[in-house]
Amino acid sequence: MITGIAASTGISIAKAYLFEQPNLNVEKKLIENVELEIDRLEKALDQAKQELIQIKDHALKELGQDKADIFAAHLLVLSDPELINPIKEKIQMEKVNAEFSLKEVSALFIVMFEQMDNEYMKERAADIRDVTNRVQAHLLGVTIPNLNLINEEVIIIAEDLTPSDTAQLNRQFVKGFTTNIGGRTSHSAIMARSLEIPAVVGTKNVTKLVKPGDLVIVDGLDGKVIINPSTEEIDHYNEKKVSLEKEKQEWAKLKNSATVSLDGEHVELAANIGTPNDVQGVLNNGGEGVGLYRTEFLYMGREQLPTEEEQFVAYKTVLENMQGKPVVVRTLDIGGDKELPYLHFPKEMNPFLGYRAIRLCLDQQEIFRTQLRALLRASTYGHLKIMFPMIATLEEFLEAKSILLEEKELLVSQGEEVSSTIEVGMMVEIPATAIMADQFAKEVDFFSIGTNDLIQYTMAVDRMNEQVAYLYQPYHPAILRLVKMVVDAAHKEGKWVGMCGEMAGDQTAIPILLAMGLDEFSMSASSILPARSLISKLNKKELEDLIPTLLSFKSGAEVESYIKSIVLNNDGKL
Amino acid sequence: MITGIAASTGISIAKAYLFEQPNLNVEKKLIENVELEIDRLEKALDQAKQELIQIKDHALKELGQDKADIFAAHLLVLSDPELINPIKEKIQMEKVNAEFSLKEVSALFIVMFEQMDNEYMKERAADIRDVTNRVQAHLLGVTIPNLNLINEEVIIIAEDLTPSDTAQLNRQFVKGFTTNIGGRTSHSAIMARSLEIPAVVGTKNVTKLVKPGDLVIVDGLDGKVIINPSTEEIDHYNEKKVSLEKEKQEWAKLKNSATVSLDGEHVELAANIGTPNDVQGVLNNGGEGVGLYRTEFLYMGREQLPTEEEQFVAYKTVLENMQGKPVVVRTLDIGGDKELPYLHFPKEMNPFLGYRAIRLCLDQQEIFRTQLRALLRASTYGHLKIMFPMIATLEEFLEAKSILLEEKELLVSQGEEVSSTIEVGMMVEIPATAIMADQFAKEVDFFSIGTNDLIQYTMAVDRMNEQVAYLYQPYHPAILRLVKMVVDAAHKEGKWVGMCGEMAGDQTAIPILLAMGLDEFSMSASSILPARSLISKLNKKELEDLIPTLLSFKSGAEVESYIKSIVLNNDGKL
Repeated sequence: MITGIAASTGISIAKAYLFEQPNLNVEKKLIENVELEIDRLEKALDQAKQELIQIKDHALKELGQDKADIFAAHLLVLSDPELINPIKEKIQMEKVNAEFSLKEVSALFIVMFEQMDNEYMKERAADIRDVTNRVQAHLLGVTIPNLNLINEEVIIIAEDLTPSDTAQLNRQFVKGFTTNIGGRTSHSAIMARSLEIPAVVGTKNVTKLVKPGDLVIVDGLDGKVIINPSTEEIDHYNEKKVSLEKEKQEWAKLKNSATVSLDGEHVELAANIGTPNDVQGVLNNGGEGVGLYRTEFLYMGREQLPTEEEQFVAYKTVLENMQGKPVVVRTLDIGGDKELPYLHFPKEMNPFLGYRAIRLCLDQQEIFRTQLRALLRASTYGHLKIMFPMIATLEEFLEAKSILLEEKELLVSQGEEVSSTIEVGMMVEIPATAIMADQFAKEVDFFSIGTNDLIQYTMAVDRMNEQVAYLYQPYHPAILRLVKMVVDAAHKEGKWVGMCGEMAGDQTAIPILLAMGLDEFSMSASSILPARSLISKLNKKELEDLIPTLLSFKSGAEVESYIKSIVLNNDGKL
Repeated sequence: MITGIAASTGISIAKAYLFEQPNLNVEKKLIENVELEIDRLEKALDQAKQELIQIKDHALKELGQDKADIFAAHLLVLSDPELINPIKEKIQMEKVNAEFSLKEVSALFIVMFEQMDNEYMKERAADIRDVTNRVQAHLLGVTIPNLNLINEEVIIIAEDLTPSDTAQLNRQFVKGFTTNIGGRTSHSAIMARSLEIPAVVGTKNVTKLVKPGDLVIVDGLDGKVIINPSTEEIDHYNEKKVSLEKEKQEWAKLKNSATVSLDGEHVELAANIGTPNDVQGVLNNGGEGVGLYRTEFLYMGREQLPTEEEQFVAYKTVLENMQGKPVVVRTLDIGGDKELPYLHFPKEMNPFLGYRAIRLCLDQQEIFRTQLRALLRASTYGHLKIMFPMIATLEEFLEAKSILLEEKELLVSQGEEVSSTIEVGMMVEIPATAIMADQFAKEVDFFSIGTNDLIQYTMAVDRMNEQVAYLYQPYHPAILRLVKMVVDAAHKEGKWVGMCGEMAGDQTAIPILLAMGLDEFSMSASSILPARSLISKLNKKELEDLIPTLLSFKSGAEVESYIKSIVLNNDGKL
């Protein structure tokens, strides 16, 4: 048995399919017939193109437009004369084989893009590598294994899975996968969750331990991979799988129920979304609202700012499709790790402590005002609430709110219809804001605690930085103390408090947050039904008595083990 | 009158000396006599060398070894065949003039070094620019103004001042300076303070507004520059200057006094130091101890880690020279913005939230243990206290302390003498630590609040980032609440609390910190006597009554104006 990172929930038992990249090593050879060599290159380019078109179509059908776009981009790379011409020229000038020329020229481009200061450009390096490897395979006459051709139930064992790889996965036959590298937020993990295939990533060496055809169990709940399990193990996991299925059926029954604790306390379970397409998933999973609409996706993957009209259509669509349920829209949270190439941000030494979100919006007000106008115009199509991200000082909140009111008055004076009941709140994700929550509570309509950033700043740790990620501790008493401070301050002023960080959907955190009085929990849509089920079994009043003990603990580990042993069973469940 | 950033205290009135760089624009010319052109280059190189030797000697005499070393490095650049040979080759191969070749080749080197991921290498780019400009001036027959030749009292007006420039300043004649760019921590500002010349930096456009020979007042207290002042203004500033002098004499009398408030409460005023050389300044300014010895300077500007013996000598020297007064040594705080090229840190997206200080020391324990052994062996030579930087969790503190105890036992078992009364404390500079101070207080002997970082994390702002620096607010009530939390928690357990961030020496912050019960204030040596003077005029008991009001304010600005109007006079003084 090996352990890794549980990347996508569920249990699968199937034969191992070792997915290994062919050897693409290339030797330099001098050639005589330049024309013939260029023909070979053209042919390989063409074969790669045909293959990519197939993958793209498959992706569109199975995974949607977003994923298909990745391969449209790959196809563009293949047709880009700035990449292809130098390969041909090198063959001509230096009389070398196509393989060598392709390798040398593409390596140059990859290095060039990788060294750019811009995250967007850096990602282009991965695209070029992916595409040129495909062409190289055709030149060398080796096969890049086509996952699409798998026709029996398997579990894929791989070093890592690239976008090309995951786009080819056929859910009918691929029952799970496990990789050497990656973490919960790596591409392969995200894809596994979106495909609902159990997955364990970051095992370090699973490809070395598994042989093709071995029977493998992937336990995406606990991050375990069992190789050639015993009969008892197979029985155990089959039982676990059945009880998981049963649990899922139980959860499904809760789809149209309110979220009520054992002792009758009601809370709201909402979802975090990024695009209008995500709304269907919210409704399918019984979401009572959208607790966080991340509008920055509207601004990404394009060449210029979205127009007011484009934004209006997106916001209107979400509001209408949510059928009157509340939708909390977070205004543009760009900067930090999310760059927009067309805005030409300055290069910052510590982007997480820099020019981002509301700081940028208050500085570049035309961007902000355009978004606010689009939101205000959409407000009559549903139940809109607006919140501002990265508020550090009360002045910032008051300024942002007054800009919103200015735009509202302007629209009304122009005869536009605008809802008169829009609640205006803010994210609590900076320690100063939590500490000053009593002051903010007098001015806002609501708070939404963004735990991802709040934990980062409170612990002074970049959770993306693997060397210090151990300090990213959601259950740390310092975080719990801040959350309690915020909830208490809000309730004292009669305001409601939500949470839209990952913690809100976490089964260990939910009993604590319920006890503290959190009013709204916003999470991935797929976490809503398990959360509703858990809450229905919790007695809020009883849990409240545990709070002083929790806050007196010294470490996150103490909190976690206390909750898991006292509130949940030891397997983290009730 | 224009305003800028007060960079170095004091007032000067003198004639303006416009320090402008000559035009170093260069045209490409084809030449015929290659040998002649190379001779011209050699000659210019030689003249630049002679000039640099003079500047270096002047720097050694006036500013000490550290500054002279900068010019020793410049001389090395001038003799580096890797830079010089390509310039000659370009003249030879392309038959171009020396000016053009120098410009093109040096530009290449500058770009190359600037693009490196390593801060140390980036600084080399500035060196190369400085040196090659000097050579270019000789080639072009123009003069880079030699500040060293000034022989009447002047105030220098400049875009900026480079290390070469400030090293040439003659304190006898240069009475102050003001620049367009720079901030309180820019090179020019630091040099002004070390030379004790009044300076105002960051005026944006002072070079455009002042003409050579204009009478200029530089007010380094309030960050003002007055051009061609009226008689009344001259009188006013002369009075201000006199009272400043008088104040300085008053302060000097306090050198050997204890620090006692008007109502008889004693606190300790200590100094922050970086090297053993700084001890004399501490004693000259009446410091009652060293509150922060930044040991990372021992590790910087060298090729490999300092040995245990080298460290032992440095620590012993500081302890002996402080004559039994307490010395709080902070263990290695490297990483973040402080890189050590020879340790090959990973490139981080947010170094301030990354692998640094105690995180690195607990991971690379041999580095940490070597430092601890050196400290323990030096401990019998004075009054040593040890503190750990960037503690986020109690586990980290306990682990660091247990490593210290292990090394102590090991040394004792080897027959080494080690003090048995070393206090072991920690920096409070991460919000989680302040929030959990009640837990930490049970384990530590003392706290030292590092406000520079604490403010950065609490407000989520990189203060080096000019676009968001306005959010770096030391007086913000969120910061004050955290400070109070730490002081109260420590006192409840009978432990003492110091502060070693810039805030501890700030005249507006001192009344607040005194009222909150801070036990030790550690600051630049030059701030100690003014702080002692201020405290002697403050009634601690009365100030305590203001705390609830201060903590109920909404913004840093409210706190500042309240203290300045109620406690201090409106000019920020008692």
